[in-house]
Amino acid sequence: MMNKITGHYSQSYDDELNEAVDRLLTMGALVEQQLRDAIKAFIKGDRDLALEVIQTDRTVNTHEIGIEEHCLEIIARRQPAARDLRLIVGVLKSINDVERIGDQAEHIAKQLLDEECQRPTEAQLEDIEMMGDKVLHMLQQSLSAFKEMDAALALAILKQDKLVDHDYGRILRHNLTYMLEDTRQITRGLHLIWVARALERIGDHAQNICEFSIFIAKGQNVSHLTEEEVEAVVDKGRK
Amino acid sequence: MMNKITGHYSQSYDDELNEAVDRLLTMGALVEQQLRDAIKAFIKGDRDLALEVIQTDRTVNTHEIGIEEHCLEIIARRQPAARDLRLIVGVLKSINDVERIGDQAEHIAKQLLDEECQRPTEAQLEDIEMMGDKVLHMLQQSLSAFKEMDAALALAILKQDKLVDHDYGRILRHNLTYMLEDTRQITRGLHLIWVARALERIGDHAQNICEFSIFIAKGQNVSHLTEEEVEAVVDKGRK
Repeated sequence: MMNKITGHYSQSYDDELNEAVDRLLTMGALVEQQLRDAIKAFIKGDRDLALEVIQTDRTVNTHEIGIEEHCLEIIARRQPAARDLRLIVGVLKSINDVERIGDQAEHIAKQLLDEECQRPTEAQLEDIEMMGDKVLHMLQQSLSAFKEMDAALALAILKQDKLVDHDYGRILRHNLTYMLEDTRQITRGLHLIWVARALERIGDHAQNICEFSIFIAKGQNVSHLTEEEVEAVVDKGRK
Repeated sequence: MMNKITGHYSQSYDDELNEAVDRLLTMGALVEQQLRDAIKAFIKGDRDLALEVIQTDRTVNTHEIGIEEHCLEIIARRQPAARDLRLIVGVLKSINDVERIGDQAEHIAKQLLDEECQRPTEAQLEDIEMMGDKVLHMLQQSLSAFKEMDAALALAILKQDKLVDHDYGRILRHNLTYMLEDTRQITRGLHLIWVARALERIGDHAQNICEFSIFIAKGQNVSHLTEEEVEAVVDKGRK
């Protein structure tokens, strides 16, 4: 139930703007699946699935290049201003973050393929799975917020990033403790830390996508504001 | 000796495009200094300098917001096409990378301020210093390539990133060995790994800036091409 863009001087201009958003969402859905597979591969120790995740990278890159060209064409031919221009710039920036999420998913898959990777314990895998679920949810929701241009939803997701950062800190501390107690744990501990760090970075990218939605809807770049300041921007004009 | 942009239908349009590039370079010079200070602070153990590095972050953010607004205004008012449009989009993307380089410099400074940070050995600090010099050089050169729109220089810098990745791999392996031999080295080893990783990421951002210069000069997004393919793009039209 997307909020379709309508009402421009030509139907084809409407169509072009909608196509930009649709293509971003298609690319986003692909990367979401890539991330889901990367987490699953790591948890299950499924090397074939990890290889698939790595191969998806090429398709993601092709999407990125195609969407960029589409957006530049709209700017050159349609002379967008105000909200339309913010939308195009928002799509251009978001594809960058979506592509980097794909890179991090690939990074997670590669941790499994590392020859020296020992299998983590059940408890360690549960920690990663829980953190992975939160990050996947953030990514899904951030794409929904973009689709619906829903600044309030975007703000709600921004707030979830704290939980992800908290998980990362916890996994980091746990693994450091294991590593200090038993040096044979060092390689495994580092692999788990890399995976947790990749998930934490994906949370940051999802946050960026949310900030772009607020930028498009509200006309203000909120990326360096405090949570309270972002709230004020989102609430503006809602009364 | 910058290649000033001239020859548009109005002198003020020329000025606006030049201003966008000038402001990116000013922001770049600020972040370059921030990185130089961060490395120096870490090497010398200078906590006051590390605090300064962290405080510079606000100024960098203000630059980013201002340049973004300037670029959006140019798009809305001047309807740039072809190379001008690529230039504006290139500036918009580059400020993002420059800002992230600043974040990584801050990250390096924070490693020093961490309460548990033990002083590294002379040999360890020398490794970081050597890697830091390479990355600083890459950043300087990538800003020069942007200033001069010099695709050949940009390509030469892209090739340097391998050396930086190689340094990172070496520092990572060294520290893992130390950590395995002596668990008291784990906290220190991890701090050194984080610093090396931040430098490696800065190399990647400098690479992105080079790719944007090639995009502006040659009209093709080269970010997902192999080195040989990028060479072919840069050589195109030079014969």
